[in-house]
Amino acid sequence: MYLIAEFLDQVRSEVDVTLDSLIPTENDEPKNLHSAIRWSVFAGGKRVRPAIVIAVGEVLGATRKRLLATAAAIEMVHTYSLIHDDLPSMDNDDLRRGKATCHRKYGEATAILAGDVLQTLAFKAIAEDGRLSYECRVRIISILATASGSPAGMAGGQQLDLDAEGRITTIEEVELIHRHKTGALISAAAASGATIADSSGRDVEAINEYASKLGLLFQITDDLLDVTQGTKELGKTAGKDISALKATYPAHFGIERTRELAVKIRDDAIAAIAPVEKNTEILKGLASFIVDRTN
Amino acid sequence: MYLIAEFLDQVRSEVDVTLDSLIPTENDEPKNLHSAIRWSVFAGGKRVRPAIVIAVGEVLGATRKRLLATAAAIEMVHTYSLIHDDLPSMDNDDLRRGKATCHRKYGEATAILAGDVLQTLAFKAIAEDGRLSYECRVRIISILATASGSPAGMAGGQQLDLDAEGRITTIEEVELIHRHKTGALISAAAASGATIADSSGRDVEAINEYASKLGLLFQITDDLLDVTQGTKELGKTAGKDISALKATYPAHFGIERTRELAVKIRDDAIAAIAPVEKNTEILKGLASFIVDRTN
Repeated sequence: MYLIAEFLDQVRSEVDVTLDSLIPTENDEPKNLHSAIRWSVFAGGKRVRPAIVIAVGEVLGATRKRLLATAAAIEMVHTYSLIHDDLPSMDNDDLRRGKATCHRKYGEATAILAGDVLQTLAFKAIAEDGRLSYECRVRIISILATASGSPAGMAGGQQLDLDAEGRITTIEEVELIHRHKTGALISAAAASGATIADSSGRDVEAINEYASKLGLLFQITDDLLDVTQGTKELGKTAGKDISALKATYPAHFGIERTRELAVKIRDDAIAAIAPVEKNTEILKGLASFIVDRTN
Repeated sequence: MYLIAEFLDQVRSEVDVTLDSLIPTENDEPKNLHSAIRWSVFAGGKRVRPAIVIAVGEVLGATRKRLLATAAAIEMVHTYSLIHDDLPSMDNDDLRRGKATCHRKYGEATAILAGDVLQTLAFKAIAEDGRLSYECRVRIISILATASGSPAGMAGGQQLDLDAEGRITTIEEVELIHRHKTGALISAAAASGATIADSSGRDVEAINEYASKLGLLFQITDDLLDVTQGTKELGKTAGKDISALKATYPAHFGIERTRELAVKIRDDAIAAIAPVEKNTEILKGLASFIVDRTN
């Protein structure tokens, strides 16, 4: 049996090597800016999105070295969004992945620029990945830009989230917000992996459906962790959703029913990839990992 | 004689139509975010960078319709940088192009997201420009990402500028800052135009040299306007460089010698394009326009 923990460890270390090669060093001027970028990128993230790129790509036949730069690029976009979301004018958070947030450590101006540069570096990494054809690079950049911008993407989702703050919203509105804020980038990770593997037709449809379930699953477990785990375990401020009066799955359904819902959506995700006539163990493992995660 | 004012008017209106087609409308959710983006993009910029893309591209043989999306993309990157540079933690400015800055009008969080999305939309616009070959799109994205990121680009230059604030710096340091903060994007505009025209060799070298002079010229005239024009004429807060104790060309050389220097650099820019065996009137006109501008 393929061990998902082993796969994730391996991906994390290979993606970190790739990120290290794509990001300016702390000796390059302006040093404080590059130091701030590295502070946030190498804060110990789980690299779930890169794992999705690589798992989907490998299942569909791509080699890992063709997947790594894109995997790293998507992690850079994710990290830029965390840096900006943590800013005082946004979620005003002091703690991320168990460390001071970028603006607490480097100041607000540098944190804003660090996020800006990470976004730039992500597109640069894909554009300059000589292992991929020009067409492939263009398609991935288009997928990633659509998923991380607005209206259909991550930044638009963050605005919707800010607009909803301080009022209890419906569970439908919560789903809409998270489909943009979290789901779009997870779907882009899967779609990029499939694009690099040059997949089409039924496989791509199945992967899209799987990724959409995975995004929802990720959000539901995030909501659960926010109410069941402490700040120390999470590495970020716990209980924030409650204090922000956010409508969450546990607030709506209660903790037990939310746990059952998560298991059901994991099963839906696994069912979604049934049409893919490949060894999809790793994709099933990823869905189970997300449901079982503790931070 | 070709009238530069006419060219600039034409470019402005065509680029604005292109920008309008590339940016989500104020009816798309989240409406406030798209409204904030449009507030800053359509605040009446001179569209100097798009004009450089189009002037260089057309001189070297590209058709205008192949140049417009890239021209608009570079203006989006420029506008994103203005929105972020104006933020309270950066230059803390209330006025831009004669109107309230984005964060004064829409709040800080939305302004940060508006800048973020504009950067995303810029790369998306180039990636999805079906008039250009895949290779051409990839090359332009790489040029633009390098010029707008760090260490070699605009965001890195903004960090250097912030780091220099409050202390008088040498004129060499000022040049270094502005080569990154302003010059890199102006050079990228010229290089993109040349790439779309599929130029190579001596023409590209000449254009690069011209663009480098143009970037310097733009900065020197910006410094001059800051001390010689009022806030009303500039549409942004005048005299900011002096109050921030920045080393500027007028502070170093005095106003009269700085004016002479600007004229000399305009002549250098015009001399730089002498090897281009095409009708380069429009490029000469652009250099003269920059030296003569009043805002």
